Amino acid sequence: MSLKIYVDRLSQPSRAILIFCKLNGIEFEEVNIDLSKGQHRTPEYQEVNIMKQVPAIVHDTFKLFESHAILRYLASAFPETADHWYPKDLQKRANVECVLDWHHSNLRRGSAGYVFNTILAPAFGLPLNPQAAAEGKKLLSASLATIDTYWLQKDGSFLLGNSQPSLADLSLVCEIMQLEV
Amino acid sequence: MSLKIYVDRLSQPSRAILIFCKLNGIEFEEVNIDLSKGQHRTPEYQEVNIMKQVPAIVHDTFKLFESHAILRYLASAFPETADHWYPKDLQKRANVECVLDWHHSNLRRGSAGYVFNTILAPAFGLPLNPQAAAEGKKLLSASLATIDTYWLQKDGSFLLGNSQPSLADLSLVCEIMQLEV
Repeated sequence: MSLKIYVDRLSQPSRAILIFCKLNGIEFEEVNIDLSKGQHRTPEYQEVNIMKQVPAIVHDTFKLFESHAILRYLASAFPETADHWYPKDLQKRANVECVLDWHHSNLRRGSAGYVFNTILAPAFGLPLNPQAAAEGKKLLSASLATIDTYWLQKDGSFLLGNSQPSLADLSLVCEIMQLEV
Repeated sequence: MSLKIYVDRLSQPSRAILIFCKLNGIEFEEVNIDLSKGQHRTPEYQEVNIMKQVPAIVHDTFKLFESHAILRYLASAFPETADHWYPKDLQKRANVECVLDWHHSNLRRGSAGYVFNTILAPAFGLPLNPQAAAEGKKLLSASLATIDTYWLQKDGSFLLGNSQPSLADLSLVCEIMQLEV
């Protein structure tokens, strides 16, 4: 089966998918969708992802978008994936899911709002929005504090006190690296 | 094993957990956490969920929050759960995950922002915020349109063209019912 991954490396969830595949020896074809050139809005790309967003994958004929859904699917569909990424143990897996879901409304929302409205918006033909940037920064700061004071408080180098990374570590670290933009 | 579910029925994800358990014959004890009385901020409740939010569960000694993570966990931990809620087939499951993840940044964000800033805020001692309400309404309208023109476009009465509901249907319908507030 072929695996095509549609990404723009400027997008943090795109990078999470690429890194996951490379770390787990999953073969894929990277298809660049340049967001700043509007390549996500072409009719051809809408055949891949009707939502006009990256990342998306096509695994043989199966199309999927939403980065966390993609990560879960790849971790399950490729048996060479080490268990620590997406543990089979129900409670360990539930803890990873908890961080992934928390991420959407906290770190992701704060970071994306802040970076887009302080840096990226003009590249997409939109004005910077200082108020949205300030709200993003506030949520971003609170989310980083929560990571520090809660998710990383147990023994172990990774989130939830784990000694090896999970999908949650990968998603969150790509988001945090985006702040280097 | 005992299952305690900490909820406020005014919270849409709380209702999703309760409905899921009732539909699947899962026995549980409902513990009411009255958000309008600040019961989510007590030291006792923070022992259950450090994030001071509902819903949360304690299954024997295992604590979990984030409603989608809870739904996935319950569907997996209670074997009496019918497969259509959270299919074992990898691609069917991935499609359900895709809707659940999409929900966070679209319908949920729009609906919660709109309802909170037009109705609920005073009950929590906060002022109504017309601008946030307008932004919420815009995202809510776009999300409802996407549900109509995309997620419900295939044959079948439920999301993704399914003939029976999944966790995604349950989460989204509880969000939409919140608009009756």
